[in-house]
Amino acid sequence: MIDITLPDGTVKTFEKNVTPMDVAKSISEGFARNVISANFNGTTVETVTPLTTDGSLVLYTWRDNEGKTAFWHSSAHVLAQAIEELYSGVKLTIGPAIENGFYYDVDFGEHSISEKDFKAIETKMLEIARGKHEFNLRFVSKADALEEYKDNEFKTELIENLEDGTITFCDHSTFTDLCRGGHIPNTGIIKAVKILSVAGAYWRGDETKQQLTRVYGISFPKQKELTEYLTLLEEAKKRDHRKLGKELELFTFSHRVGQGLPLWLPKGAALRERLENFLKAAQKKAGYEMVSTPHIGQKELYETSGHYAKYGEDSFQPILTPKDNEEFLLKPMNCPHHCEVYKAFQWSYKDLPVRYAEFGTVYRYEQSGELHGLTRVRGFTQDDAHLFCMPEQLDEEFKNVIDLVLYVFGSLGFENFTAQVSVRDPENPDKYIGDVEKWEKAEQAIINAASDKGLNYVVETGEAAFYGPKLDFMVKDALGRKWQLGTIQVDYNLPERFDLTYKGSDNELHRPVMIHRAPFGSIERFIAILLEHTAGNFPIWLMPKQVIILSLSEKYEKYGEKVLNLLENNEIRALVDNRNETMGKKIREAEMQKYPFMIVIGENEEKENKITVRKHGGEDLGMISIEVFSEIIKDEISKTLKTF
Amino acid sequence: MIDITLPDGTVKTFEKNVTPMDVAKSISEGFARNVISANFNGTTVETVTPLTTDGSLVLYTWRDNEGKTAFWHSSAHVLAQAIEELYSGVKLTIGPAIENGFYYDVDFGEHSISEKDFKAIETKMLEIARGKHEFNLRFVSKADALEEYKDNEFKTELIENLEDGTITFCDHSTFTDLCRGGHIPNTGIIKAVKILSVAGAYWRGDETKQQLTRVYGISFPKQKELTEYLTLLEEAKKRDHRKLGKELELFTFSHRVGQGLPLWLPKGAALRERLENFLKAAQKKAGYEMVSTPHIGQKELYETSGHYAKYGEDSFQPILTPKDNEEFLLKPMNCPHHCEVYKAFQWSYKDLPVRYAEFGTVYRYEQSGELHGLTRVRGFTQDDAHLFCMPEQLDEEFKNVIDLVLYVFGSLGFENFTAQVSVRDPENPDKYIGDVEKWEKAEQAIINAASDKGLNYVVETGEAAFYGPKLDFMVKDALGRKWQLGTIQVDYNLPERFDLTYKGSDNELHRPVMIHRAPFGSIERFIAILLEHTAGNFPIWLMPKQVIILSLSEKYEKYGEKVLNLLENNEIRALVDNRNETMGKKIREAEMQKYPFMIVIGENEEKENKITVRKHGGEDLGMISIEVFSEIIKDEISKTLKTF
Repeated sequence: MIDITLPDGTVKTFEKNVTPMDVAKSISEGFARNVISANFNGTTVETVTPLTTDGSLVLYTWRDNEGKTAFWHSSAHVLAQAIEELYSGVKLTIGPAIENGFYYDVDFGEHSISEKDFKAIETKMLEIARGKHEFNLRFVSKADALEEYKDNEFKTELIENLEDGTITFCDHSTFTDLCRGGHIPNTGIIKAVKILSVAGAYWRGDETKQQLTRVYGISFPKQKELTEYLTLLEEAKKRDHRKLGKELELFTFSHRVGQGLPLWLPKGAALRERLENFLKAAQKKAGYEMVSTPHIGQKELYETSGHYAKYGEDSFQPILTPKDNEEFLLKPMNCPHHCEVYKAFQWSYKDLPVRYAEFGTVYRYEQSGELHGLTRVRGFTQDDAHLFCMPEQLDEEFKNVIDLVLYVFGSLGFENFTAQVSVRDPENPDKYIGDVEKWEKAEQAIINAASDKGLNYVVETGEAAFYGPKLDFMVKDALGRKWQLGTIQVDYNLPERFDLTYKGSDNELHRPVMIHRAPFGSIERFIAILLEHTAGNFPIWLMPKQVIILSLSEKYEKYGEKVLNLLENNEIRALVDNRNETMGKKIREAEMQKYPFMIVIGENEEKENKITVRKHGGEDLGMISIEVFSEIIKDEISKTLKTF
Repeated sequence: MIDITLPDGTVKTFEKNVTPMDVAKSISEGFARNVISANFNGTTVETVTPLTTDGSLVLYTWRDNEGKTAFWHSSAHVLAQAIEELYSGVKLTIGPAIENGFYYDVDFGEHSISEKDFKAIETKMLEIARGKHEFNLRFVSKADALEEYKDNEFKTELIENLEDGTITFCDHSTFTDLCRGGHIPNTGIIKAVKILSVAGAYWRGDETKQQLTRVYGISFPKQKELTEYLTLLEEAKKRDHRKLGKELELFTFSHRVGQGLPLWLPKGAALRERLENFLKAAQKKAGYEMVSTPHIGQKELYETSGHYAKYGEDSFQPILTPKDNEEFLLKPMNCPHHCEVYKAFQWSYKDLPVRYAEFGTVYRYEQSGELHGLTRVRGFTQDDAHLFCMPEQLDEEFKNVIDLVLYVFGSLGFENFTAQVSVRDPENPDKYIGDVEKWEKAEQAIINAASDKGLNYVVETGEAAFYGPKLDFMVKDALGRKWQLGTIQVDYNLPERFDLTYKGSDNELHRPVMIHRAPFGSIERFIAILLEHTAGNFPIWLMPKQVIILSLSEKYEKYGEKVLNLLENNEIRALVDNRNETMGKKIREAEMQKYPFMIVIGENEEKENKITVRKHGGEDLGMISIEVFSEIIKDEISKTLKTF
């Protein structure tokens, strides 16, 4: 008999060789029907794996990420089988589950596939799925495995790197693949399948090696879920920040300047400035001071901070000088510079906390294949700040920073978020710098602050930065996608490395603690997420222009100017469209540019000294006075932009 | 007989071998007494050189830069003689005139000199000067010259690089030196001498060669001029921006970040921001739009612009990437980026002019020995803008830019300035890119604009940038020193190189003209000059804090808060000093921090709901109401900050 501990702590006794599915059935038949994957003592197992020792068992359904992973991993097997059946002589390589779906990298040999082939693959996959084939893991000796794949140089290479005795194959239907396990009970629960795209991919991601074809797909237990997913995908395409950025004339890229280096066009630069001013105002109230530091620093600076050892070789290479034999680096982070600013003064305990903020542009090398719009770039501006405080001030400072971050999220329409406390992995002490006692204090301070502020948070072991633990916020956007935004980190290490001090009330020198924080994270990435979250309909306080005045004809130019002036006197940002175009065209273009309000003026409006107002999206507010309209806008602003 | 043409165009006939001094005397004995140097047909000559051909003669007095150069060059000879007489066995090397005075680099052998020796050198120099020794040039064969200096390896090296037949020595008193000429008539007019400092200097500026002692001095025709100069020097030291920058806590440098890379402390960052906002507001009114571009660009970008060919090898070296084999450069200028922003759109003639502005930080390598505070740095922020217009708009745009520059100077207290139009040297066409016709048009446009705006300008041939002609402003600061500030450049070339176009009313593509302009030039250098010009007493609109409220004791903390709020409601920037310190100390520190106004509050003030006001420097405005005080400040602001 063996004892099985379930996640709620209950312990059940079973006969040896009980399977996870048996355990599920012992809980309830209904529950068991939904179980698709399992984990025993921290290792993924099949739902049909006989359990032979005492241990902890977790059972997963489609609702769990682990369940989805098993579902999509299993679907990748089905995809591979379908491809083998449809295309003779193909060679399979690897096919993992990914965040949304799965892929398989295939050497198609003489064949080539394109969108027109997707339907056939989907049909074949569904045909296989309907066979309700079970997935069975089978141990194979290295020699047998190599023999099995003697015509497939890719699998051969994989097997050669495995140890004899650890190699497993997975069989289902007539198909076999080299596989470590983690499958759903049978193919029958795959009810809906979509091949999404094909792309080129180098074997092992190495561009000197053979190019393969990567086939992307996704699958679901219900047709309805696939339909919803495709709708979401369609909506996401419409909201793609690269598309909106172009339409709204916010930013561009230039091959001459270089990939991953956005150029901010006037409307985008104004948007950035408005975001920066918003944060500046809140930071000023919270006692921050702005500083300004260069975009390069001597290599020695980053050797002192530890950044060079961590990132140096994988990042932009050092900048040499023609004389003086100096070596500079593009700054990957602002913290070393802020430490040097702190060192410009002699500090007393009466002066702390000191809070230095900077919209600091940093540069980090990313491989060209990994760049993506504004979300993955090579140069970006952090809304960075570093707080230097006494250890006994840490709790309060940390809480104040949480307040600021929550204010930022609230003002920008991110109402749905969770938090993650990332702590070190005590079993991997080499990954971190600094002593254990300080790490423990810092981790505890973060957990206390998160609890006190009532955050919905999880603690993740091993996710800390190398220099300290942190609190990250995960926001859910309008399409339900999760983004990591806003980070707050505690750091006992840089103050050591830079020998930062303050004089305590005891007249002795002490070490301050540092907090790193960036509510937006990267302004570039934040704007990308905000664009996709709002589809370009930013909160009205943030819109560079809140109102466009459309005149029916050039005759009303003068009245348009008058309305513009009155709005500007009310601190409403507006512009006039006096072009000699049809009102239909003007409205269409204004809708495209996402102006929250359109004002139409013509003979009646001028005569009555009023304006006709139409909201973005079409709602008609009728003909009203400018005073009433100003109140409406002010209301809308106060609904989103709260005072800090 | 020969014809001598004078600068005013008159031609006088003299017997051959007439000397410049003879010509001077023929004009007037009084004038001749002031003549100290001459130039014949573009070459410096002695005042006693016999003239043997027709030609143009310019005679210089102490008031001319050329006169000062001859005076100081001659003084360097006297310095060398004094050193030789005082220190046996020294070896002379070179000793030129410089902007203010002269130096001589000497191998002092066994001797070493310091400040305590200066007096003796000055006394010896004046003793020699009183001898009224004439300077006589003498041609010497290379062999004789080498023989003369056989014990001086430095002079030997210099002579070896000269062609036989061109070598001259200059004799005066008992002293002889290798010299090309350009002396004053005799030593007697050197009436005042000051040795200023000694410093180490490598032979030929090469750090692998021998270190010599550089002795700096200055001399004048009148004792009064020396006294004035030393007073100015003293005042300049007090106003040294490096000293004030430290006292006012504006900026710092860090050896870890790197030399020539300023870190802006909170007060300095706030000052920068205020300056930027001031210019932003004026630029907005003038139709500029802000853009934002990265601090690096691919090497190709600067190859396209021509900057790489011009500066590449002498500047910061390319930044390599660990993969992708890309090469980036720190941007030395913003223009290539702005050209790429322009290219993001399709332009019609109706859209022009387009004016892109950016406070763009650029990086240029300067040798460590040439760095100086904020005036010579390796990273600086240009208040840059690029205007793209139709050729027929150039004149008007250029004039508008002049208006903006004049507004900036006026608001910042630079009332005393001249302008320089820098045009190409037609005899050196290889120095410039682009065709002659466009250069001529651009040069004419600048001259027209300068004339129309009534600027006091000179035209300097050969001073243009390699890509186009320019207008530079030279301001005179409170100490009478001249600084180049504000530049406006016309560029027909980058639009070609970047293939910039707009669609004309004829529906054809045309080439726009570019104007580069930066009223401040570099914000870092501008702040340095402004600090030295104002001694830190910035125009009141620019002061980060305009008022400091000093409370007599902690009892008045509450009243202090009330006064602060009332001032802030009047948009006056203030802070409170509630420290438990004596009023004397508080006032001294407030004076040091240059607050324009100090408000003292105590029992009387609170009772009467008034404030006692004292201006920076000590003027007492007595006890007045906050309303009256607000009006006083607003008056002061409107006196300096005019509306644009």
